[in-house]
Amino acid sequence: MNQKPDEIMEMARRRGFIWPSFEIYGGVGGFYDFGPLGAVMKNKIIQKWREFYVIREGFFEIDSPTITPEDVLRASGHVDHFVDAMVECNKCGEAFRAVDLAREQADVDIEGMSKTEMEKFLETKGVRCPECGGTLGKIFYFNAMFRTTIGPGSKRVGYLRPETAQGIFIDFKRLQRHARGKLPFGVVQIGKGYRNEVSPRQGIIRLREFTMAEAEVFFDPKNPTHPKFSKMAGEQIGLWLATDQMKNRQHITRITVEQAVNEGLVCNKLMAYYLALTKRFLLELGIPEEAIRFREQTPGQRAHYSKETWDAEVSTKRFGWVEVAGLAYRTDYDLSRHAKFSKEDLTIFYGGEKVLCHVVEPSYGIDRPFYCVLEHSYTSEGKRKLLKLKKWLAPITVGVFPLLNRDGLPEKATEIYDQLKSEGFMVEYDDSGSIGRRYARADEIGTPYCITIDHQTLVDNTLTIRDRDTAAQVRIPETELGKTLQALVQEKISFDSIGEPVKK
Amino acid sequence: MNQKPDEIMEMARRRGFIWPSFEIYGGVGGFYDFGPLGAVMKNKIIQKWREFYVIREGFFEIDSPTITPEDVLRASGHVDHFVDAMVECNKCGEAFRAVDLAREQADVDIEGMSKTEMEKFLETKGVRCPECGGTLGKIFYFNAMFRTTIGPGSKRVGYLRPETAQGIFIDFKRLQRHARGKLPFGVVQIGKGYRNEVSPRQGIIRLREFTMAEAEVFFDPKNPTHPKFSKMAGEQIGLWLATDQMKNRQHITRITVEQAVNEGLVCNKLMAYYLALTKRFLLELGIPEEAIRFREQTPGQRAHYSKETWDAEVSTKRFGWVEVAGLAYRTDYDLSRHAKFSKEDLTIFYGGEKVLCHVVEPSYGIDRPFYCVLEHSYTSEGKRKLLKLKKWLAPITVGVFPLLNRDGLPEKATEIYDQLKSEGFMVEYDDSGSIGRRYARADEIGTPYCITIDHQTLVDNTLTIRDRDTAAQVRIPETELGKTLQALVQEKISFDSIGEPVKK
Repeated sequence: MNQKPDEIMEMARRRGFIWPSFEIYGGVGGFYDFGPLGAVMKNKIIQKWREFYVIREGFFEIDSPTITPEDVLRASGHVDHFVDAMVECNKCGEAFRAVDLAREQADVDIEGMSKTEMEKFLETKGVRCPECGGTLGKIFYFNAMFRTTIGPGSKRVGYLRPETAQGIFIDFKRLQRHARGKLPFGVVQIGKGYRNEVSPRQGIIRLREFTMAEAEVFFDPKNPTHPKFSKMAGEQIGLWLATDQMKNRQHITRITVEQAVNEGLVCNKLMAYYLALTKRFLLELGIPEEAIRFREQTPGQRAHYSKETWDAEVSTKRFGWVEVAGLAYRTDYDLSRHAKFSKEDLTIFYGGEKVLCHVVEPSYGIDRPFYCVLEHSYTSEGKRKLLKLKKWLAPITVGVFPLLNRDGLPEKATEIYDQLKSEGFMVEYDDSGSIGRRYARADEIGTPYCITIDHQTLVDNTLTIRDRDTAAQVRIPETELGKTLQALVQEKISFDSIGEPVKK
Repeated sequence: MNQKPDEIMEMARRRGFIWPSFEIYGGVGGFYDFGPLGAVMKNKIIQKWREFYVIREGFFEIDSPTITPEDVLRASGHVDHFVDAMVECNKCGEAFRAVDLAREQADVDIEGMSKTEMEKFLETKGVRCPECGGTLGKIFYFNAMFRTTIGPGSKRVGYLRPETAQGIFIDFKRLQRHARGKLPFGVVQIGKGYRNEVSPRQGIIRLREFTMAEAEVFFDPKNPTHPKFSKMAGEQIGLWLATDQMKNRQHITRITVEQAVNEGLVCNKLMAYYLALTKRFLLELGIPEEAIRFREQTPGQRAHYSKETWDAEVSTKRFGWVEVAGLAYRTDYDLSRHAKFSKEDLTIFYGGEKVLCHVVEPSYGIDRPFYCVLEHSYTSEGKRKLLKLKKWLAPITVGVFPLLNRDGLPEKATEIYDQLKSEGFMVEYDDSGSIGRRYARADEIGTPYCITIDHQTLVDNTLTIRDRDTAAQVRIPETELGKTLQALVQEKISFDSIGEPVKK
């Protein structure tokens, strides 16, 4: 049975996954720290994403600055369009996002409405200040980029990037040379993104500073397909179409990606390929298939650069459906704008003619899937509390416990602990309290395997290894430990197939 | 023979290691992009650092925001002390760092001088504006943190962190609970740091946005040692003592870390341990031992929080000796300041009494060692240009070349390429130009192994593998490829010991 979301967050703070930043100074909304367990797990999610996109898909990775001069973001449209519609209370002066108030007090999504429509909506529905009940003023726009200045004086304005994508677009010329004229080619960037949220109140779901992993796929608009589309064609996905949303229908269209393209529901095969890949990535993290859907953004919801956008959403208890990735068909918007503003020719010669590449962008958050995975992994079985993380994703792979703190057991356990570290395992040494309590602590943070060093270890160099999910224990020779753990974590062997069962 | 530094930077730009950011908008000083090869290599350096500190030393890793509220940086002293002494030209109005002008025009390091001393120095030496020759005005201070505001309005001031360390100090209470009362314990953070340089002119050596890897070691001031000091005691390091610098003596004291502590040259065993570990890390990256020294900062050079600081420096052709890491004895400065400003008790009970931990901080840049490694690896042998990177550090591990673009060779080569990717290797497929040119391209970016698929491959499933450093080639069965490459990269086997030699 799943635990309550509050219990998960309590565990996450107490055990060192995540906690609110700047706590001793009273905290600042929209910032979270990843603690010792959280940072490891987050890095593993990033590494898995790299495995999908950089190693297997062969995308190039770049790493460009978070500080971005105004020129770039004027060209990209963010100076004009990366804005929140805000409204101030006439009584207490507090400012709020109009979209938040409409959702909270009228349960309606007004994203995409014009200024006048929003004002009319808020008035008609009698929306009031949630703090003091006062009436609300006119809508105004607040640019959600963090602003700074570069160098002394305040002449050179810069912003913290709202997305990593722009660093890729402005490097297009160098990157296409690196691709040696091949299309499509893909480029990724993983790093911080920023959004100066007005009053973030949803914990790790609405951060002012977050980690993103974005992929930009440059392609010839005449041939918007993926060389390996056929291998993905049969993958089934669930689509919540814009047309259904606009009719207030909850209906999910379950369909293969090939059919989705054939029926014109998804714009092209490239987009379809990455929808399927996104689903596979989320499954790999341990999100169950039934908790994944792709929601098509309605025309009013789409960003200024997009012609079609799919939000990959994961169902959660705490926050409802949470967007964890957005897949946007950015067309040639970015390249054409940068060509215009920088006066650089960003076309390439391809197939005998000049081509301005189009872009499909799979853009992932890292913090939100992190939360979703925690929530979907946290379960209890009787009194046992378990974080059933995928084995590769657990921050600690193996706990090392001396049965007693005497008789040479700690020395032997330390030796094994050092050996496992030298083989690259994340290991935790725990010698405090009963073995049962140590197992419980390890279960709670998802450590898939715990080994215990007992008197028999000193006699015959065997030790017990315990499986988190079944609590089963077997005895194996010390010499086979590293190899066995490696194979277990990579799911190349099953726990049943190793060692001598131990009576509990 | 080593290449000229300019040639290295040209190669680095052309092949996609690094290039100046925002090029199509004319560039902004102090920002660099890591391209497709550079990003991979930078990540490998970071991963190696993690292996040293997180896996082997058992430090906890955290990940906290780059945006930091003013309260935190007021407590840390950065609002008051993270400043550059500046001077403006009376004629053209351009601003410069006084320290830069003194170094450039008088070859003297005036870091640490007071305002009045600097003014007197610049006047006495006749230092002028390097742009127009005008006379210079009074010294003034410029805070080198990037400033921004959090949320709407400009009430809540924030800065981009000048170091990752503060995120660790303010989390001390949670982190020491995670350490379960043990001392010493260490915490690391890897991420972006920022310094709003006035007019950066040294490329990747003086960045406004950079990647740091910092470790904070919390210890009982009564027992400033490392549990494994004895294993490191005999490691030899080269020290450039502050006393020698102040007498203008270039003398390097070569000494074991144990002697250095015994003779009072290094403050304690913890500091000494991490000096030795830093040397080992730099060696692991491929920096030769003779190009590494530890320079003791003179009292005037030290940051406001430090009682003793050692800069790990690497000798380069382009920039002279470059600081790549700083090891500072921060005492209880940070914890006591945060305790005072936040009014939280940051002492712990240890050994029966209240202890305010002291801190030794090994703080590494990532960008600078990256450059140093490139420079030290780039060599030519006759006409061959080679990047002799350590094999594990090369961005591409293996090149896959079909001998011809026909006869089924590309199909076979693609199959092998896909297989290697699925095994997690960074692989490049290259079918353009003669085999000789493809080898040359691979050599230039440091790819340690290239395999060629020829007609014999189709007959007996063998292929040739070529060693970058010797250009030797051997023929091995395809089935052994992955295993062999893995062992070669990990330096578990030598190239001589595999396969059948091939005549060139």
